[in-house]
Amino acid sequence: MSVSSSALPFEDIRNLVRTMPTADTGAVEAARLRDAQLTKPAGSLGKLEEIAEWLAAWSGPEWPKVKRPLVAIFAANHGVTAKGVSAFPADVTRQMVENFSAGGAAINQICIAHDLGLKVFELALDYPTPDITEMDAFDEAGCAATMAFGMEALAGGTDLVCIGEMGIGNTTVASALLNALYGGTAADWVGPGTGVDDTGLKRKCAAVEAAVARLGGEKDPLEILRRIGGREFAAMAGLVLAARHQRIPVIVDGFVTTAAVAVLQAMDPGALDHCLFAHVSAEPAHERALQAMGKQALFDFGMRLGEGTGAALAAGLVKAAAQVHTGMATFEAAGVSGKSEA
Amino acid sequence: MSVSSSALPFEDIRNLVRTMPTADTGAVEAARLRDAQLTKPAGSLGKLEEIAEWLAAWSGPEWPKVKRPLVAIFAANHGVTAKGVSAFPADVTRQMVENFSAGGAAINQICIAHDLGLKVFELALDYPTPDITEMDAFDEAGCAATMAFGMEALAGGTDLVCIGEMGIGNTTVASALLNALYGGTAADWVGPGTGVDDTGLKRKCAAVEAAVARLGGEKDPLEILRRIGGREFAAMAGLVLAARHQRIPVIVDGFVTTAAVAVLQAMDPGALDHCLFAHVSAEPAHERALQAMGKQALFDFGMRLGEGTGAALAAGLVKAAAQVHTGMATFEAAGVSGKSEA
Repeated sequence: MSVSSSALPFEDIRNLVRTMPTADTGAVEAARLRDAQLTKPAGSLGKLEEIAEWLAAWSGPEWPKVKRPLVAIFAANHGVTAKGVSAFPADVTRQMVENFSAGGAAINQICIAHDLGLKVFELALDYPTPDITEMDAFDEAGCAATMAFGMEALAGGTDLVCIGEMGIGNTTVASALLNALYGGTAADWVGPGTGVDDTGLKRKCAAVEAAVARLGGEKDPLEILRRIGGREFAAMAGLVLAARHQRIPVIVDGFVTTAAVAVLQAMDPGALDHCLFAHVSAEPAHERALQAMGKQALFDFGMRLGEGTGAALAAGLVKAAAQVHTGMATFEAAGVSGKSEA
Repeated sequence: MSVSSSALPFEDIRNLVRTMPTADTGAVEAARLRDAQLTKPAGSLGKLEEIAEWLAAWSGPEWPKVKRPLVAIFAANHGVTAKGVSAFPADVTRQMVENFSAGGAAINQICIAHDLGLKVFELALDYPTPDITEMDAFDEAGCAATMAFGMEALAGGTDLVCIGEMGIGNTTVASALLNALYGGTAADWVGPGTGVDDTGLKRKCAAVEAAVARLGGEKDPLEILRRIGGREFAAMAGLVLAARHQRIPVIVDGFVTTAAVAVLQAMDPGALDHCLFAHVSAEPAHERALQAMGKQALFDFGMRLGEGTGAALAAGLVKAAAQVHTGMATFEAAGVSGKSEA
């Protein structure tokens, strides 16, 4: 799955999208058969049963299991912060990366609580992508190379990956991506992010309008990604595409991660079938994005932090669903009577 | 907190309700102060922050922590099964208790996934409470003694308790309790439980109608509990009342556990302030019960198994919330810049 051998790197990405593996329907059938024998009324575990089937569909012929869950956080900086779009200074991106390394962030604690591995990938923090109200975020080679970097994040091995991000200014980029992909007005896709006030919100709207106007109606999702950015978006899209080829299930976090993977769905409506959407963010446009994509999230806890925090909470539920499916006794083995005949 | 010394045992219970401790507002204030210093935008962890405050309110002066979480399951049998109200034979109650002991049930797996202790309490399974369409479930001494048994379930020590139940026929009892407490018709409170068909549903409705009619408009919640039962309900109500006096936060599971604790809320509207409601069950009347009680559940996964499974999933989230609150670095300690001045 090399992306470096071509003179047209996006063509390699398009090939990977064209050759995506599909769900393992045999494994789903086997999971359903086993589920029907477990010591509980049929269907009584609701979403946990659906999660077990989804794991079976995307993790191969064995029973669904989660032994090496990983949270992968991608951090990047954004030239558009020059337009005053964030409540926090751009330095905070690096400071938070250091906080991740020191174990002091929210995501570190959730990883402790749910026994999840954590890897943080810095994407050239000292060289923000250009201000997208004026210039493209990448050239084609740069965008494809960043996607390839995201793909490599799976190299250490994992059987469930949660994607997360850190990047002051990146809700503005996410809004611009979604506006370009799904239409509507800038205001439809802009929200308070980390907590800008009303004038900050107007600056975000203006920045999104300018960035999208610059595209001149471009409809190719990869071109939209290239011109809007940013690095964490390209890396997460690359990771999710690589995970599909390696049959590794993915948990998507909130607003920014959803915008990143929306690029893949715009290329192929089934491109995210191996992804579970963790939560509905408090960022108002997240619900709109999920609706536009036809996706339903597991829960709504009013969270809006990023860092993969929502996805990591969902990973605790997915681990429980896998444990239930693999660990429960069958009616026969436990000597429990089944449903009475009517 | 002995309930055995009185000739009027319900008077002891009423005294415990009258003397319930209230939320530790100082601890809540301290939790809010700490939360404001943690390396995240204010409010960005939504429900996790609320959970941390709730833990602080009910677990005393130290930072919220969850070190000894416990799932307590109460199992009982019900004479009303003679009326054909369940899809499963009554023998299944004992068979499932054996399955819990052998580690084969869904709740065992969720306890493994989230590192929760599990205790199962059998309540005279060979002597079901009488068929409540014809007779009272308890006399006063028997009901109070069963509540006291539930109180003792905390004796081994815990700092977060999830309540769960197992009892073939007990959704019928729960429906009757809720109908007696909140009015309406039997049909408002009856649902498929473990999966009865339409004729089974009619039998459940008839049984609830008969049981509630027998009460003759009784409004005293303890008398309703005594006359409707059953043992797991009385034990769970007792446990939740004892937990309040010991300042141990409680997670309530689904339809049956909600009906059990509704008895306490009917005695005092603040009696369940130390309780978190885990999930909205697929049993249709659970949502109605939560609305009647003014409670909101954390999530809706379409579950309807009981055994404390929904509460145990929620315990994973509560553990994460406590870890986040106690483990995160402050802006100052991590050297992370705060919000920019506007």
